[in-house]
Amino acid sequence: MEEKTNNGSLEKLKIIPLGGLEQIGMNITALEYGDSIIVVDCGLAFPQDEMLGIDLVVPDVTYLKDHADKVKAFFITHGHEDHIGSIPYVLKEVPAPVYATKLTQAIIETKLKEHDLTKSVKRKVVKHGQTINVGDFRVEFIRVNHSISDASAFAITCPVGTVVFTGDFKVDYTPVFGEPIDLRRLGEIGKKGVLALFCDSTNVMRPGFTMSERTVGHTFDTIFSENRDHRIIVATFASNVDRVQQIITCAARYGRKVALEGRSMVNVMTAASELGYIEIPENTLIDAAQIKSYPPEQLVLITTGSQGESMAALSRMAASIHKRVSIMPGDVVILSSTPIPGNEKSVSKVINELSQQGANVIYQDTHVSGHACQEEIKLIYTLLKPKYAIPVHGEYRHLAKHAELAESVGIPKNNIFIMHSGDVLELNEEEAKIVDHISLHEVLVDGLGVGDVGNAVLRDRKQLSESGLIIVTMTMERGTNTVLAGPELFTRGFVYVKESEDIIMEATEVVCGVLDKHLNKKAADRNRLKNEIRDTLGDHFWRTMKREPMIIPIIMEV
Amino acid sequence: MEEKTNNGSLEKLKIIPLGGLEQIGMNITALEYGDSIIVVDCGLAFPQDEMLGIDLVVPDVTYLKDHADKVKAFFITHGHEDHIGSIPYVLKEVPAPVYATKLTQAIIETKLKEHDLTKSVKRKVVKHGQTINVGDFRVEFIRVNHSISDASAFAITCPVGTVVFTGDFKVDYTPVFGEPIDLRRLGEIGKKGVLALFCDSTNVMRPGFTMSERTVGHTFDTIFSENRDHRIIVATFASNVDRVQQIITCAARYGRKVALEGRSMVNVMTAASELGYIEIPENTLIDAAQIKSYPPEQLVLITTGSQGESMAALSRMAASIHKRVSIMPGDVVILSSTPIPGNEKSVSKVINELSQQGANVIYQDTHVSGHACQEEIKLIYTLLKPKYAIPVHGEYRHLAKHAELAESVGIPKNNIFIMHSGDVLELNEEEAKIVDHISLHEVLVDGLGVGDVGNAVLRDRKQLSESGLIIVTMTMERGTNTVLAGPELFTRGFVYVKESEDIIMEATEVVCGVLDKHLNKKAADRNRLKNEIRDTLGDHFWRTMKREPMIIPIIMEV
Repeated sequence: MEEKTNNGSLEKLKIIPLGGLEQIGMNITALEYGDSIIVVDCGLAFPQDEMLGIDLVVPDVTYLKDHADKVKAFFITHGHEDHIGSIPYVLKEVPAPVYATKLTQAIIETKLKEHDLTKSVKRKVVKHGQTINVGDFRVEFIRVNHSISDASAFAITCPVGTVVFTGDFKVDYTPVFGEPIDLRRLGEIGKKGVLALFCDSTNVMRPGFTMSERTVGHTFDTIFSENRDHRIIVATFASNVDRVQQIITCAARYGRKVALEGRSMVNVMTAASELGYIEIPENTLIDAAQIKSYPPEQLVLITTGSQGESMAALSRMAASIHKRVSIMPGDVVILSSTPIPGNEKSVSKVINELSQQGANVIYQDTHVSGHACQEEIKLIYTLLKPKYAIPVHGEYRHLAKHAELAESVGIPKNNIFIMHSGDVLELNEEEAKIVDHISLHEVLVDGLGVGDVGNAVLRDRKQLSESGLIIVTMTMERGTNTVLAGPELFTRGFVYVKESEDIIMEATEVVCGVLDKHLNKKAADRNRLKNEIRDTLGDHFWRTMKREPMIIPIIMEV
Repeated sequence: MEEKTNNGSLEKLKIIPLGGLEQIGMNITALEYGDSIIVVDCGLAFPQDEMLGIDLVVPDVTYLKDHADKVKAFFITHGHEDHIGSIPYVLKEVPAPVYATKLTQAIIETKLKEHDLTKSVKRKVVKHGQTINVGDFRVEFIRVNHSISDASAFAITCPVGTVVFTGDFKVDYTPVFGEPIDLRRLGEIGKKGVLALFCDSTNVMRPGFTMSERTVGHTFDTIFSENRDHRIIVATFASNVDRVQQIITCAARYGRKVALEGRSMVNVMTAASELGYIEIPENTLIDAAQIKSYPPEQLVLITTGSQGESMAALSRMAASIHKRVSIMPGDVVILSSTPIPGNEKSVSKVINELSQQGANVIYQDTHVSGHACQEEIKLIYTLLKPKYAIPVHGEYRHLAKHAELAESVGIPKNNIFIMHSGDVLELNEEEAKIVDHISLHEVLVDGLGVGDVGNAVLRDRKQLSESGLIIVTMTMERGTNTVLAGPELFTRGFVYVKESEDIIMEATEVVCGVLDKHLNKKAADRNRLKNEIRDTLGDHFWRTMKREPMIIPIIMEV
């Protein structure tokens, strides 16, 4: 054990992931040195299946609130929800300036507008290559490729050394927009010495290299050339500006007009176009309202909904409830994305519905990933040669595989840390160690309520969703066991009305039986009576129907 | 239009799929000629995501009940749930003998036992090559390969011609148990003339040939040879007897003992072993209770739960709640199956949990499909050369692709029918036509209740699951607007208790506001009062919280 740690001469850097390891998405990591804390990314997660009725999950930032005076800034790698989505929630609690590249800031601004926070959150646009000094930290923005433009890695330097966060990245030597990932700068930084690397694990199971975004363009070209007589509808992520660029370029090449469908598609493309991240040939883009003025074979619609999201434009077209677009036999529909785990069934549903309407649905080879495969990850390790490796962005199995891969390129096993959210990693040149664990409580967002739904509420919702409920009401004379009205039983979500009469009558008799036993008792113990009704009726339904509805006895007193 | 149809000289065969086309699974098809109806398969479906609290879905057999005197027999292709699962439900309503091969009957018997129906359902064991005559039909059982032993195709002959049902099948030239699919017999039948082919579409998207089951054995061998120092746990489908056979053979070769985990694994293997479908080398199988007596490297556990099913043995091991087996660092866990669509996230969860406990989880190349790919399907078409083609077993997109494929091997487009459940296909040598559609209502099974849960109940469950409920109770004087007790508000699944006090207080004031307005009215209209409470409170919660709890006003009268 070193004594020096306490006297400051060999002070350590603390790194705390506040989310994103168990709960995929929700990337947010605090770095603390001396009196400075900076935060990398501020994402949200989408609810897991068992989180009934929950809209979003945002991180527990109690630690940041408790040290609010130290928090100097937020640095955002890129504009995807799992890296920016919590900004409106977190910045309300921990105000600090937000640093990000131009397109990323534009997307953040859209989010802040929705929460009426544009004025209260300070934002600064940073260019790749630029370095920001805040407190004890220097943060350099380094260009990387990803499925959204303007993505960055960070080289973060403080007195103990330099830590690199890759963010989400891939290596694209032939990107559609801008330059390839700045490998030379990464090499330079590596040469000066890197203390720790926090590297993307999303695709670590895949051998080889992720294909260039440009290859999708070739696929589009083939599809466009083979389907000159049909309308083409392409669904993709609104944030994938380069993908949309390629579709538009292809459309222009084949003399087609392009209309955008879906609110987020229109929003992102407007921003991307204003900022110069997309180039739309003149007379190519038309308003969605104009599509009726063109024959199908002269049209391309670019739409949201490639993940089968039920409210998105493509799902509404598939279900014939879109207000402007009806699928016609012969339409070529391209799904330019692969289903995110959990979305497989919704995507299949949309494909089935489109096929039933006669569309020719194409979903193979129409997408490339935005994340690095094994050889790309090895490339980054080889350039940076970090002392310590901390795999991030992935489920546990990905992090474990990434740890193996890091070992294979020469990182000693003891220098690789598979962290859990809340783990506190302390490190300097001499050693790195998980010294503490902060217990984190995910904050569930339901409507306007932030954190007012917890496990007890979710348990109730689960029981209600599986078996419904039965309310037993009666009015009793205060202080006696005399029943003045009732018992009456009401059910919801339990059985079909036409079946329920007999069931309710039987159950009412069961309740009356409980009441009879109570009438002879002297004390008017309402809680005991309620418990007995709950237990007896519960037994009754389990025995006769193998069901467990929620039973809510209510006794009013007059 | 032909007149002859009505005078019987050119009578037609009617074929009605009663399930299995929209609702994947639940295969059941009625064939009707003259006074005879026979039924092919009798499967169930697992509930879709929106069917909250539903355990199973069974087919609507009103048509069979309405023609019960005609129903001669059920013919079952193989022992998977989506082909046999509804037998206990349907046979109660439409009693008729069930014909199937030996292993299939053994699995059916297990199901009937659970429903206490072994005595009431007549069952007959049929061998491949055997033909059964019932009413106007002759049904020949033809051997096919599949992921369960003893699977059959049927050649069904009636006076209008021969119809072939492939059932679920693949072509395996080197099966683990028994013979390859009887291609020569299919060729013979084809030569005599086939009117219609109902062929499996599950893998129609995949080019080429499905690999032989035996290739998985080679993978197992490699894994066993590379992991001699560790315990090996293999999860697979209990019904995949050949897969289990290969694991056992491999275990014996490497001198390991085998223990079976999971109720269905033990059940199926007991039956398979008694009937001679599996060969267990002496001194290889041990009781699960004995595993403690052997060192890990001498053990193989074969377990259920390869789909991440939360109650299955593997999930319980992963979650450290299995009563006998704790995962140890170094354990090799093989998932020998691919996730069925919809199960991806549960499977990932199990893999993550196992990895966190230090297991080495292997799930690539450890499975082959039981269904035919494109070249195998073309082979069947080429042998049978049917006049009409009806793609079955698949989602709409699969059926549509299968239709293309059938056209490519020479079936005229007009002779290919993509049917929907309930469609009535009438056919003979002269023509085939969908002449009618029977509207079908899926029967939902919830606990012991069969069909007592309908859409209204599911809608209630959905609302309850998303936002919970609020009960408003009060006792009023009969015939007046005087409130004797209450209003009191109760919530479940709405907000966390510690947050709810203020919310409830505010809501109670809203209800009191509604009551005040009513007190002045002369008529004591309870329904109107309830509606006003529901509307006003609903508005209030939407405005203040963007939530829509179910609001249940209850007024008792004294």
